[in-house]
Amino acid sequence: MSSNSITAAICTIGDEILIGQIVDTNSSFIARALESHGIKVRTMLSIGDERGEILSNLSHCLACHDIVVTTGGLGPTKDDITKSVLGELSKATGTFESAEQLAVIERILSARGIEMLPANRAQATVPDSCRVIVNKLGTAPNMEFEFQPEQFGHKAVLYALPGVPHEAEGAIPDVLKSIEGKFETGRILHRTLVTFGLAESVLAEKIAQWEDNLPEFLHLAYLPNSIIGVRLRLSCYDADIAGREELLNTMFSELRDILGSYVYGEGEDTLYNILPRLLQGPPVASRQETLAVAESCTGGLISHLITSVPGCSAFYKGSVTSYANDVKASVIAVPAEIIETYGAVSRQTAEAMARGVLEALGSDYSIATTGVAGPDGGTDEKPVGTCWMAVAHRNENGEVEIFAKCHHSGSRLREVNIRRFAANALNMLRLMISQQLFID
Amino acid sequence: MSSNSITAAICTIGDEILIGQIVDTNSSFIARALESHGIKVRTMLSIGDERGEILSNLSHCLACHDIVVTTGGLGPTKDDITKSVLGELSKATGTFESAEQLAVIERILSARGIEMLPANRAQATVPDSCRVIVNKLGTAPNMEFEFQPEQFGHKAVLYALPGVPHEAEGAIPDVLKSIEGKFETGRILHRTLVTFGLAESVLAEKIAQWEDNLPEFLHLAYLPNSIIGVRLRLSCYDADIAGREELLNTMFSELRDILGSYVYGEGEDTLYNILPRLLQGPPVASRQETLAVAESCTGGLISHLITSVPGCSAFYKGSVTSYANDVKASVIAVPAEIIETYGAVSRQTAEAMARGVLEALGSDYSIATTGVAGPDGGTDEKPVGTCWMAVAHRNENGEVEIFAKCHHSGSRLREVNIRRFAANALNMLRLMISQQLFID
Repeated sequence: MSSNSITAAICTIGDEILIGQIVDTNSSFIARALESHGIKVRTMLSIGDERGEILSNLSHCLACHDIVVTTGGLGPTKDDITKSVLGELSKATGTFESAEQLAVIERILSARGIEMLPANRAQATVPDSCRVIVNKLGTAPNMEFEFQPEQFGHKAVLYALPGVPHEAEGAIPDVLKSIEGKFETGRILHRTLVTFGLAESVLAEKIAQWEDNLPEFLHLAYLPNSIIGVRLRLSCYDADIAGREELLNTMFSELRDILGSYVYGEGEDTLYNILPRLLQGPPVASRQETLAVAESCTGGLISHLITSVPGCSAFYKGSVTSYANDVKASVIAVPAEIIETYGAVSRQTAEAMARGVLEALGSDYSIATTGVAGPDGGTDEKPVGTCWMAVAHRNENGEVEIFAKCHHSGSRLREVNIRRFAANALNMLRLMISQQLFID
Repeated sequence: MSSNSITAAICTIGDEILIGQIVDTNSSFIARALESHGIKVRTMLSIGDERGEILSNLSHCLACHDIVVTTGGLGPTKDDITKSVLGELSKATGTFESAEQLAVIERILSARGIEMLPANRAQATVPDSCRVIVNKLGTAPNMEFEFQPEQFGHKAVLYALPGVPHEAEGAIPDVLKSIEGKFETGRILHRTLVTFGLAESVLAEKIAQWEDNLPEFLHLAYLPNSIIGVRLRLSCYDADIAGREELLNTMFSELRDILGSYVYGEGEDTLYNILPRLLQGPPVASRQETLAVAESCTGGLISHLITSVPGCSAFYKGSVTSYANDVKASVIAVPAEIIETYGAVSRQTAEAMARGVLEALGSDYSIATTGVAGPDGGTDEKPVGTCWMAVAHRNENGEVEIFAKCHHSGSRLREVNIRRFAANALNMLRLMISQQLFID
């Protein structure tokens, strides 16, 4: 079977998704994993916890695709019927209990101090038509069902994973290993450049000429994200054909050159997971620079993003969320007269916060934000969506350099503003550290 | 047309979703909005930016459902082709420029200081087969296409919304208004109870007898979320039939009674958006109690959650993320000998942090967390997933009461641990405020 023909469908099962009370995050990382192995995901589907719907949709997916991955519907409660429907679809003649999965269930319940109930034990029992892929992170086993050509016209494999995101994610390496043993997968190559500071349309204009020169086997996608920036993903199909991978790399380098300091990383880089490299990496490898944050309108999001990265304690001192003005004064020494004279949302307050937190927490760098997140509040002069942000650095001579700027988000939505403020402040920090702050 | 027969499909369009670089959050809130209007969402679908795929899948959806809502593929860049394909599907004979949408584009670009490019202006041009629903929050107009029975066997309407989540969300009221004018929608009623502190399987056991008594037109769904807890949604179909709504309410009250203090709210309540009510509402309506947070392992997430709620400045003083031990000592006065004697992850440190931040920020209540988020670190005694958390309250006599407990998440995943720690600490606060802390 040639690599081109291997396609997959991802199907989430559960009323909770159809009714909109749960966002499906599983399909996304499953797709990423499959794509990276050269398997083209052609469709994603969500259906409810109804026998007829599950049977007809999964049959259709199995008829159209080589691989089907389902998530959800495997919980211990009565509304979860996926396991029994899969037994029916795969013509199981009975069930068996997986001793390995039962051991995991016992360990997990005991670690959380929960008594083993019949509903928990029943999770280890599966249709005899499946192979169990042990779920080490949760109680519901992953199941693999192989369908012979007689049933759907070609060999097809279905993997049923739990709906809990980290459990489904944990199963992916085993799923990929199983797929490698059953299909000859080919190569789709992706390279992604991560940019910040240019809107999608401006980016597009800037690279229009470069984009016109792309050969048809190279495909460019714009992936905007309010925290990360715009990622530009260049995909190369049939990468085994001579010269294609090389041309991908050449075009990628050209793109990077065109975009200059708007580019801050590749692949999975974010404005916060690059901080260890920026603060502690080359050019001075022995460098051990530290960071502190003072947040007002961003309320803790910048600190949360920084600490979501393992190992951040090597450089991160901590933060102060000075939501109330008296906290700005008492904890990070922003003079009350600055707030009185210029207002809490001002260049002067942002600069004083950046300096204050640098000194209070004893860091080499700092970030500060103070703005109007909305949806209410603001004035004509400082409307909702306005944020003053500052970055500070204590240089080798012990002097503190501070830069501040005013960001206008153009939105009235609180959540959008908080995210844009945090991202722009983090971007300001990376430009300061890499000494590109006022190049553009 | 009876209410039962109105069904909908939601379709997201974009390679970025199929390839897993973007998570689809739009389908979720669109489904919620449609369900609340009695429209049953039968399927959600994601497909790529390919003409053939878009045409065949949308035709199929329009043939099967009354309403189709699409998001995505409407950007200014070359990879976005949805608008032209929709023109083809709806047999447009040309295009027109929406003056209203153009005005919005001009306003948005000018507020963000971006020059108007041809690609921006082109966004205001749409197929002449559609009605424009102006997108006030972004540059791409929403479009409504009505299909006559000749084309798909019944009247069908397609709404095409942009992929940017807050823009799609902003269009929903107009979409619902349009649907109300075109279809006679019926009633599905949902009531949701929000619980925290019991795992899904334990909850199920606790309410098994109650669940056995549910009539078939009432349906229970378990919606677990690591930050919110487990939501129990009770749905009533054909709610116009006599007695059904009443029975829904009766069963709902019974459920609430069975679960006692594990229940903390209804509907969209979360452990953080109930804080204004808890800290400033009845029983003492004139109460103006305030809150401060000291975070170590949770890194800012608790503060971020609290400040995601508009109006939090009425009670929220702020937080200190004391990631480095010296910050615990210098900013929130945790005695260095406590950390030396008992370790940073200990009852004593958590209590000292709670007391320290209460005093440093001058609040009435405080929360503190200190734990091992992982994935690395930890010891046999304090493995990854261990968190000491404390809550403090200065009572009317000026005395500070403090409670602490140790939480074991049972996980090695950093993101999971941070979320579980934050949620459990917020739950501890709500139990303290409502004086239920040690009832269970």
